[in-house]
Amino acid sequence: MTTFHLPLDRSAGVPLHRQIREGIRQAILAGALRPGQRLPSTRALAAELAVSRLPVLAAYEQLRHECYVEGRTGAGTYVSQSLPEDLLCSRPAAGVAPRWPQARDAGGLGPFRMSLPALDRFPHAAWARLVARHARDLAPAHMAYGDPAGLPALRLAIAEHLRAARGMRCEAEQVLVVSGSQAALRLAAAVLLAPGDGVAVEEPGYPGARAALTANGAVPLPVPVDAEGIDVAALQAHGGRVRAAYVTPAHQYPLGMSMTAARRLALLDWAARSDAWVLEDDYDSEYRYVSRPLGALQGMDAHDRVVYVGTFSKVLFPALRIGYLVVPPALLDAFVRARLAFDLFPPTLYQSALAEFLREGHFARHLRRMRGVYQGRRDALLAALARHCGDRLRVHNADAGLHVAALLAEGLDEARVMERMRERGLTATALSGCYVGPARRDGLLLGFGGSDEGRLREAARVLGELLRA
Amino acid sequence: MTTFHLPLDRSAGVPLHRQIREGIRQAILAGALRPGQRLPSTRALAAELAVSRLPVLAAYEQLRHECYVEGRTGAGTYVSQSLPEDLLCSRPAAGVAPRWPQARDAGGLGPFRMSLPALDRFPHAAWARLVARHARDLAPAHMAYGDPAGLPALRLAIAEHLRAARGMRCEAEQVLVVSGSQAALRLAAAVLLAPGDGVAVEEPGYPGARAALTANGAVPLPVPVDAEGIDVAALQAHGGRVRAAYVTPAHQYPLGMSMTAARRLALLDWAARSDAWVLEDDYDSEYRYVSRPLGALQGMDAHDRVVYVGTFSKVLFPALRIGYLVVPPALLDAFVRARLAFDLFPPTLYQSALAEFLREGHFARHLRRMRGVYQGRRDALLAALARHCGDRLRVHNADAGLHVAALLAEGLDEARVMERMRERGLTATALSGCYVGPARRDGLLLGFGGSDEGRLREAARVLGELLRA
Repeated sequence: MTTFHLPLDRSAGVPLHRQIREGIRQAILAGALRPGQRLPSTRALAAELAVSRLPVLAAYEQLRHECYVEGRTGAGTYVSQSLPEDLLCSRPAAGVAPRWPQARDAGGLGPFRMSLPALDRFPHAAWARLVARHARDLAPAHMAYGDPAGLPALRLAIAEHLRAARGMRCEAEQVLVVSGSQAALRLAAAVLLAPGDGVAVEEPGYPGARAALTANGAVPLPVPVDAEGIDVAALQAHGGRVRAAYVTPAHQYPLGMSMTAARRLALLDWAARSDAWVLEDDYDSEYRYVSRPLGALQGMDAHDRVVYVGTFSKVLFPALRIGYLVVPPALLDAFVRARLAFDLFPPTLYQSALAEFLREGHFARHLRRMRGVYQGRRDALLAALARHCGDRLRVHNADAGLHVAALLAEGLDEARVMERMRERGLTATALSGCYVGPARRDGLLLGFGGSDEGRLREAARVLGELLRA
Repeated sequence: MTTFHLPLDRSAGVPLHRQIREGIRQAILAGALRPGQRLPSTRALAAELAVSRLPVLAAYEQLRHECYVEGRTGAGTYVSQSLPEDLLCSRPAAGVAPRWPQARDAGGLGPFRMSLPALDRFPHAAWARLVARHARDLAPAHMAYGDPAGLPALRLAIAEHLRAARGMRCEAEQVLVVSGSQAALRLAAAVLLAPGDGVAVEEPGYPGARAALTANGAVPLPVPVDAEGIDVAALQAHGGRVRAAYVTPAHQYPLGMSMTAARRLALLDWAARSDAWVLEDDYDSEYRYVSRPLGALQGMDAHDRVVYVGTFSKVLFPALRIGYLVVPPALLDAFVRARLAFDLFPPTLYQSALAEFLREGHFARHLRRMRGVYQGRRDALLAALARHCGDRLRVHNADAGLHVAALLAEGLDEARVMERMRERGLTATALSGCYVGPARRDGLLLGFGGSDEGRLREAARVLGELLRA
């Protein structure tokens, strides 16, 4: 039931109950009220229209007789479901079918879906209890307008985590809470890049980042990656056009290497000398299986050239929509101003629940537990790929993160493999989609975070089957 | 407690307990671990480092002896609070004081704060119960990646509400859920305006909208408003430069008139003939005190030129961060694509709770109840202003919304009045801040939504006092 738009004219000489009945009838005929939709109670509508209840009761009675509405006073009055279709001349907006809107499917929860954490292992109950408590205790000050940079308690907890776990050098003041890493990159683009500026992106690289960074008119300049990470010599060859370089040092997206220390130093040196920025996307650095995680690039930066992007989408869950930036002090004001123009400030409830989740150690415990879970899933996938797809697929790198990049054997066509995967219910992500220029390798990106070991084994079996077909 | 970054070198010949002790000591000295911060339990750290618990216990014991940490195994180990300051050479980022970050104050909850609803009358308990239930029942599919346009159930509920309450012509497919009206305008600017394009704004008008609309490089073209709303003849005089016009037809911000039917038709006619867009910001249309609310401009638009912006900030609470757009079908894909680059999709929990809040009639009931509340607050404020500020302040329009615009009497200086108001604890918003060009009138914007009647009377008394001083 919704509040009802119904103009009355007291000077018209037409009795009120007729005006009300006619107004509702017109609303039904025009599609403003739809079959099954609930009308306001007679009491509520009378209060709304500032009339006595009598004309409203009379109008509803009349509409019932005419079969426009059904139900009884007290039990709710609804627009009739049985209204003949031809009575309804609702005007569906041109080209839009009047149906329940379907969610767009971006691979859903299918096996091999990228960027999906183990939702089945998330501590639902503890999290829901926390959210419920924070919703109950929400103070008026936390319902009003908040700090555009985010809730102070959350910024503090994030800074503490990053200093300890990622070797970063940062204060809570440098942390800006935003709605995910996509929003972080979009904001960074608005602050750092003017239309026409060059922004270096890894080739191959993350298409989502490219979209965010160039949405404002900046030009993507692909720079190849090798086994050590982005090729800094090739980056330098672009000269002064490059205002910023986007990199994934902990776990290159999509190929999976981590950037070597020498390459990191060269990149930071380039940035300092060129007065350019480095955008460090640390999207799934928490999970590393073959050695200890390296610290963040940001922690090695002596010249305040790194803008760091992190997200809780991979370590908690994507629908939380919380990510963060760590920005050099000199950029703080510009980022906060830009943030105000974007969307004022982030919603408060989840921020306060999350701050407590971090502070109370739930987060660190969850991370530790998930390392074991993902190690198991990764190992199961690698074994199953070796068994079922051995000669058709070469795993490129699986040292870290929630996906592996696998190269297709000579003679296999990526597009056809993708199509077959979709037919068999596997989520397919093509390596070629990560290139700005022509793809140099055909391959598949296989996410393993969101599926348990049994499901991954089965998916690998199906994949092997269709690769041999 | 957070996960801990501590590189071990098994080939170094240095015993593990010494490496661990030295790693933690270095982290404390570098400020990566701060006084009072909790260390991982010995069991957890041992698991992390993949070593037995013995070297970790030995390292902690040693650090305790050296007074770097305190506490007992089992009860938690913390970095010592009593560490001599000079031991700490933490590197606070240049120019940033290492203190608890303070929330920026945008007028807080002070009397006369603009855009603030009656947070004290919000149905907290019912809302918290709903949020708690939705948090508990959050299905994995709702924790993963969602529809960039928003949750289908919420889009449907919003469309139903807008058709019935605002006389709009829209399908759920045309509704895009975003994080507030600021985000809605920022997104509309990204889709509709290129750098250098002209965007007409009301003069005086809403500065927040101006910031969002011009953030991309569009140029604001101020168009005067009169008693009927935006001056369409003056708008037309700008010629073909104008790609879009931003208007507040239901309740002009800041002056308070509502746009007449004749002016609405002229505006829509201009848009259709000029191939331009109308951005309708319907920010607080739900509250009207002297006559029935007019329907939305969007409902009169036969040529699909209106992009409609709505928000739940004023009818529920700002920290919810949910607003929405209703866009013409032809623009849908462009808006969804742009939205993906901005922040992928909105967080799910609040969307699903809100969809139920609308569907179950809580929303309509709340709106109805609040109309009475705000009518009382408005009446109390107007009476108190007449009594205490009579000859110094002329209320311009108070027919609708959550604020009144009041013009200062000749000889009163706006900036000085503002300063005095702040000294006396009143939130001050200047009318002059709403002009792009030189302000033609000095005045105050007085929000009455967020304060009860007693507080408004007292605030008006104080205002009268300082206006006479």
